[in-house]
Amino acid sequence: MTEYDVVVIGAGPVGENVADYAHQGGLSVALVESELVGGECSYWACIPSKALLRPVHAVAAAGRVDGAKQAVTGPPDADAALARRDYFVSNYDDAGQSKWVDGAGITLVRGHARLAGERRVLVQTGGDGGSGDDVELTARLAVVVCSGSAASLPPIDGLAEARPWTSREVTSMKQVPRRLVVIGGGVVACEMACAVAGLGAEQVTMLVRGDRLLDRLEPFAGEAVLAGLRDRGVDVRLGTNARRVSRDSAVTVQLDDGDTLTADELLVATGRRPRTDDLGVESVGLQPGKFLATDEGLAVRGVDGDWLFAAGDVTGAVLLTHQGKYQARLLGDRLAAQSRGEQPDLSRWGKHTPTADDAAVPQVIFTDPEVAMVGLTEAQAATRGLRTRMVSYDLGHVSGAALQADGYAGRAAMLVDTDREVLVGVTFAGQDVAELLHAATIAVVGEVPISRLWHAVPSFPTMSEIWLRLIEEWRKV
Amino acid sequence: MTEYDVVVIGAGPVGENVADYAHQGGLSVALVESELVGGECSYWACIPSKALLRPVHAVAAAGRVDGAKQAVTGPPDADAALARRDYFVSNYDDAGQSKWVDGAGITLVRGHARLAGERRVLVQTGGDGGSGDDVELTARLAVVVCSGSAASLPPIDGLAEARPWTSREVTSMKQVPRRLVVIGGGVVACEMACAVAGLGAEQVTMLVRGDRLLDRLEPFAGEAVLAGLRDRGVDVRLGTNARRVSRDSAVTVQLDDGDTLTADELLVATGRRPRTDDLGVESVGLQPGKFLATDEGLAVRGVDGDWLFAAGDVTGAVLLTHQGKYQARLLGDRLAAQSRGEQPDLSRWGKHTPTADDAAVPQVIFTDPEVAMVGLTEAQAATRGLRTRMVSYDLGHVSGAALQADGYAGRAAMLVDTDREVLVGVTFAGQDVAELLHAATIAVVGEVPISRLWHAVPSFPTMSEIWLRLIEEWRKV
Repeated sequence: MTEYDVVVIGAGPVGENVADYAHQGGLSVALVESELVGGECSYWACIPSKALLRPVHAVAAAGRVDGAKQAVTGPPDADAALARRDYFVSNYDDAGQSKWVDGAGITLVRGHARLAGERRVLVQTGGDGGSGDDVELTARLAVVVCSGSAASLPPIDGLAEARPWTSREVTSMKQVPRRLVVIGGGVVACEMACAVAGLGAEQVTMLVRGDRLLDRLEPFAGEAVLAGLRDRGVDVRLGTNARRVSRDSAVTVQLDDGDTLTADELLVATGRRPRTDDLGVESVGLQPGKFLATDEGLAVRGVDGDWLFAAGDVTGAVLLTHQGKYQARLLGDRLAAQSRGEQPDLSRWGKHTPTADDAAVPQVIFTDPEVAMVGLTEAQAATRGLRTRMVSYDLGHVSGAALQADGYAGRAAMLVDTDREVLVGVTFAGQDVAELLHAATIAVVGEVPISRLWHAVPSFPTMSEIWLRLIEEWRKV
Repeated sequence: MTEYDVVVIGAGPVGENVADYAHQGGLSVALVESELVGGECSYWACIPSKALLRPVHAVAAAGRVDGAKQAVTGPPDADAALARRDYFVSNYDDAGQSKWVDGAGITLVRGHARLAGERRVLVQTGGDGGSGDDVELTARLAVVVCSGSAASLPPIDGLAEARPWTSREVTSMKQVPRRLVVIGGGVVACEMACAVAGLGAEQVTMLVRGDRLLDRLEPFAGEAVLAGLRDRGVDVRLGTNARRVSRDSAVTVQLDDGDTLTADELLVATGRRPRTDDLGVESVGLQPGKFLATDEGLAVRGVDGDWLFAAGDVTGAVLLTHQGKYQARLLGDRLAAQSRGEQPDLSRWGKHTPTADDAAVPQVIFTDPEVAMVGLTEAQAATRGLRTRMVSYDLGHVSGAALQADGYAGRAAMLVDTDREVLVGVTFAGQDVAELLHAATIAVVGEVPISRLWHAVPSFPTMSEIWLRLIEEWRKV
């Protein structure tokens, strides 16, 4: 039995940050990982997807500028893009990351962790299905669950047997499939349809249950991505469901409208489930397979004694790497503060309260065009009973955007809380909008009044002059 | 004689904005222009320079991404880039802009304006050297001088006779010179050396009097641009002066170190002078050829009666289009407010006070790498007696930057007022940093405390995660 101040389950970016911040605060930390240190994000999600998408975007961007387009004479090189992906995922080897953990003074325990009652974690070493000895870890202060999420499969006849791809398989593909069917219309579906089509697939078909893409965002965002995908030749079928799937050498997908598709691979990107099914949560009275609901300080609800915490995807609150890392930083600091006898600061925007989870979650969808948004959509604000007004403006009418890409098409919108005259949500859709987002995040989080934002001058001629136009629109009424 | 509420001299972006905001506030406005409506920025500065630079940057960006670089088979097409420039400057025709002025309800008067005593402006119609009748304009409320600036020539033997290029000639070049010598190491010199070298010049030589480029910015910014220019083959000679210049078919430049250069064109970019030499300022007791110093509300100092205002380059305060437009918006609003009998709000960050001129001027230098900065440098803060601490971080260590360009090189620094724990300056240097800037501008202008910025989560994996790293650096001490 080995005792630590904190035991962290899961060494993805979230677990790594909890461990790092707690350790920097003076605590001893064990970090348990059953797969690769670095987690989903580093090997099978954010990093490989962006490594694959960037060549597609860079070629597209150059192709939209007269004077540059003459220099770009071919499509992206898929093999080189896949090799680039391999570089960014360190060839699926976590030696570098485990070295970082060691260097940071954190104890890495490789194996499958299961809760075994209060403050106790049993680790079956040797990884999943490994035959190593069991190790028992005890946490003096806290156990933090950062086990993340996995792709969920919808109940479609024959689907599991047809060996579909999920986010893991598509981001780690060895070659670009000639024909791909995508089930889903969310972020993973849109990004990977864009990547696979951009890297040379002949036929990409998206089956989207609803009537639009990215249906949690402002409608114009999904419309922009839809237009971009169709421009690339992706066959996006809205309001369409797969009814039955089978595979011999190829995959056959029968649709509910009677049509049948044949493809080399099938990507399912319809949602995520928490990785709590084999985590021993029943030993502390929780139900396996469910997200771990947490309170404002990330303590798991339904467990007494203030010792079990969770951060990241497994909480179900916000399924985004950066937001989990944010929770992790605040939680690591909080545990360190508690160990020094300090009360945690759980006030709104307090140093241990992940208030942004509620008010200002940023997200970028790396499609072509990109979408970047933070805070509330108009629909969400209405649900909360906020009085708001939305103003929007055509990004293509901003000089900086027109100079960035000939015929630039895009849009931006800001949602203003009319009682406080502060921004509560901002959405951008267009090429290269990803880096426009943080200005919006600071405006929302900082609750900077519009009267003060009027003094924040955008540099001419950058795309950021959209800020000037949006505030001018706001002032018009 | 014709009477207006406001007479604006100069129809560049600054004059256009004063006129527009004043007119939208209910005032009658005459706008006088002797050259092209749209001004320096639209035809001979920001717009053409960026139209020429963007193809260079887009090709370079694609060339730095494995999977994209294989698609890049040549250099930018200079003829296409020049044609792109012609498109963005509307072939040096201001029909579109003058139509906008008409549509906005502003009276456009074409001719050379000269002050003729209090509230009186005499316009020699027909443009500079024109033979049209003189028109006398009277301003009930205000005359606003937005006549801008022009390139100044340093006192170098033979320089004027050698027909050197200034910013006007280089941005409107009909072909890319095979050999170019640039005198200067500031923004125009660096940007145009980058453009001309990027568009295929064989030999670009920069003569820089001081020991670094961009010497008003943080030193690492100039160093990054220096490295970038040298990587492109630009021969940057620091601490070097031209002593004598002559031209037959080619230009010969004798240097003070004894060396002699031969080039097809010579670009002089060593500073700006105010366009007040033939403006009739002597009629109101001011000295021609000087910048028009203004008070906190943009009234020209030394002139009684609160009727003469100035905005933009001609004030000498900040020589940047966007900052002049900012002054223009606030001044236009202020004149409209005054005409309604309201007192102008000239408090710090008040709605009629261009406070950002003092605290938060943003600037982007569109070289490769780019530089983007806002607020104070460490040296400027020291001059003001502020207690500050600077933290910096290698942009190449940010995942979003590494994904943006293979082997990304760049740096960011933030300057913190340690008494208030707010940002007073931020500088970025690296590829594609232009759109990172507005976040910094909002943070500085909004005086958002670092403790709150800690909740502004950058989306992963974007370059904006530099914010996380900078704040982590700040917290380390």
